[in-house]
Amino acid sequence: MSAEVRVGLLGLGTVGTGVVSIISRHQEELRHQVGCPVTIKKVLVRDKAKPRPVDVDETMVTEHIDEILTDEHIDIVIEVMGGVESTKEHLLKALRNGKHVVTANKDLMALHGAELLRVASENGCDLYYEASVAGGIPILRSLVDGLAADRITKMMGIVNGTTNYILTKMTQEGSSYEEVLKQAQLLGFAESDPTADVEGLDAARKMAILATLGFSMNVSLDDVVVRGISSVTKSDLDYCDQLGYTMKLIGLAKRDDGRVEVSVEPTLLPKEHPLASVHNEYNAVYVYGEAVGETMFYGPGAGSLPTATAVVSDLVSVMKNMRLGVSGRIVQGPLHERILKRDNEIDSKYFLRLRVIDKAGTFQAVTNLFACHEVSFEKLLQLPVEGAEVAEVIVITHHTNKENYEKLYKKLSELEVIESIESCYRVEGGR
Amino acid sequence: MSAEVRVGLLGLGTVGTGVVSIISRHQEELRHQVGCPVTIKKVLVRDKAKPRPVDVDETMVTEHIDEILTDEHIDIVIEVMGGVESTKEHLLKALRNGKHVVTANKDLMALHGAELLRVASENGCDLYYEASVAGGIPILRSLVDGLAADRITKMMGIVNGTTNYILTKMTQEGSSYEEVLKQAQLLGFAESDPTADVEGLDAARKMAILATLGFSMNVSLDDVVVRGISSVTKSDLDYCDQLGYTMKLIGLAKRDDGRVEVSVEPTLLPKEHPLASVHNEYNAVYVYGEAVGETMFYGPGAGSLPTATAVVSDLVSVMKNMRLGVSGRIVQGPLHERILKRDNEIDSKYFLRLRVIDKAGTFQAVTNLFACHEVSFEKLLQLPVEGAEVAEVIVITHHTNKENYEKLYKKLSELEVIESIESCYRVEGGR
Repeated sequence: MSAEVRVGLLGLGTVGTGVVSIISRHQEELRHQVGCPVTIKKVLVRDKAKPRPVDVDETMVTEHIDEILTDEHIDIVIEVMGGVESTKEHLLKALRNGKHVVTANKDLMALHGAELLRVASENGCDLYYEASVAGGIPILRSLVDGLAADRITKMMGIVNGTTNYILTKMTQEGSSYEEVLKQAQLLGFAESDPTADVEGLDAARKMAILATLGFSMNVSLDDVVVRGISSVTKSDLDYCDQLGYTMKLIGLAKRDDGRVEVSVEPTLLPKEHPLASVHNEYNAVYVYGEAVGETMFYGPGAGSLPTATAVVSDLVSVMKNMRLGVSGRIVQGPLHERILKRDNEIDSKYFLRLRVIDKAGTFQAVTNLFACHEVSFEKLLQLPVEGAEVAEVIVITHHTNKENYEKLYKKLSELEVIESIESCYRVEGGR
Repeated sequence: MSAEVRVGLLGLGTVGTGVVSIISRHQEELRHQVGCPVTIKKVLVRDKAKPRPVDVDETMVTEHIDEILTDEHIDIVIEVMGGVESTKEHLLKALRNGKHVVTANKDLMALHGAELLRVASENGCDLYYEASVAGGIPILRSLVDGLAADRITKMMGIVNGTTNYILTKMTQEGSSYEEVLKQAQLLGFAESDPTADVEGLDAARKMAILATLGFSMNVSLDDVVVRGISSVTKSDLDYCDQLGYTMKLIGLAKRDDGRVEVSVEPTLLPKEHPLASVHNEYNAVYVYGEAVGETMFYGPGAGSLPTATAVVSDLVSVMKNMRLGVSGRIVQGPLHERILKRDNEIDSKYFLRLRVIDKAGTFQAVTNLFACHEVSFEKLLQLPVEGAEVAEVIVITHHTNKENYEKLYKKLSELEVIESIESCYRVEGGR
């Protein structure tokens, strides 16, 4: 191993800038940990002429990615530019040229992680991606190393800061989804096109990565059942609160007898659940292991410095492996075959809000239908709606399976005395 | 490396039993991760005749520690028997005989960690001790690896389950310290001699280990300022609650400009602080890093299976290092010299509860004394005490330094109009 480690950096946006500044400010600590200095040799930018927020030597900057991918003096490529298909090709090229890779790219890892990890291994290279899930929380290494001895049966994650910010503000301020989204966009907590966040896709990518690692099986993005938060209303949150629950966008990955389910959806949690007090843009991943029981990892999910911290931690791991001569020998393929649960194996409680015609016999008709489908009530609330001949019925069911629940849902939507099913959510985290 | 890894287990109490059962139940996963099987070859017990809760082959059990320490077929020694001085000698012998060591022994690591780590390194052996701090939380590896790129400036830990259980129950049920302690002893959450827990010594040992790793400097047990919870009263907790705070036994390790302070004491935290909702016997470590910001690690702090999980995770790490041929090459010595803060560099807010004589001029006398010492009020509450000619004054100060605070405290205790200083606590976690 040479006297110093040389890095090529792909992308100089907010995370890339953070990486540059952490490496320059923490030279002494990094050298102490790794035993040699690390320098950034080249940086890929889209436009050399654009002013840059960080002090980078002009001669280091390039607009041509091959100047990095084929530079034989570069040991490690850090990818913080985003993109999926073309980025995948670039990183494959880097790995085939014997360069280790650190990436913060969840889209890429959720879609092509298995292939990239395989090619890395074939070429004796490391591929680390801690920053792709919940930037500021070292959750991936906790799953791989810290809980190595345990069998993880359940993970629940608040893994998208934008949606957690929106739900927190809606709950605390009683504002509508649209109002809070607008506010979040102004404050920079939501993108101008927020679709990937609010519709749950970003969280789904992260859950695919977490489930793959935590369950040691190849879980792909298509395996994740996804529903976003754009239809959540103020009234839903009020009812949650009255019933002792908090609404969160929860990524759930559960394993029973070797079969798994992975989903992302707005979910009610009891207020005393550790995830219920994770507010604003913070992320947290709750992990249940057979031996260890409940653990939770909490921290900033995004932001340039937290994400850059995770990137540089991965860089340190790659450098340690280089020094020890064990690069590309850490990753294991999955141990288990991925088998998804059938609907009748997916067990949950549900929240249902029904608008019913307020007349004699309605209540019996509704409760009969529940009984028919073997779904019983844990909580039930009926409230008149002012100035209308309708009432609202709010139900929290006992545990049932998804197949039963969906049959019940269909029958409810056809029942004459029910005007509409206003909303329905999964309920998790209780006994 | 031989076809299998052989372990000698020192101790077959609850943690040792957990280790045996995890290794036997998770053989397939362990073999997948490490690439070879692991077997327990010998187990040290105090009394062979005693019935054992776990199925262990009679021929494996020994009462003679040297049968393990000198067995050349044993690769790794797991120490879960406790004890300090003699245990240290045994583990030094194991290391000198080329055996890697995994220990759950915080007392030992807090007192002799530096020496043991040095001897391990000299002999090309690994020494892992994740289970010694907050058993179920992979906090040590998170500090070393996950936050490798960051500069940690503050750690706050709820690292003793017994005291957190007691304070939680006192707060929730309004019971006295003595009542809850008795209850905790009946339920097995407190030892029959609870001194090490309730007086903060157990937490202090863990904070010495955390500070050593997190700040990369040799912090010893003597550096930790310790105060336990045995003098906390119901009234103190009521006032906390009224003022918007929760009382926790907080281990605090703080670094400013290269100088550190480490303490364990009952501390008021704002109710919205992430640590404030860590209840019962759970542990959590809150870490503040310059780049990453706030993170928190939550989980069971003790218990045989959580602790055993941490031990087996360490075992996996040791086995991976053996397979990669990099044993004993992971540990770095401390980077920084340990310099403790002077009292005038220790900055905090304080809670004070004074019993004053209820007459004209008292209030002025008290507030004058605060002003004299440049300590200002953030919150102030005066309440009459029924049926007595005294009143209670509760103060939360603004930030001040410890030197000023202690001078003020002395003057207050001498002031004629003050009958007594009922209680005083540090206040942390605000802006």
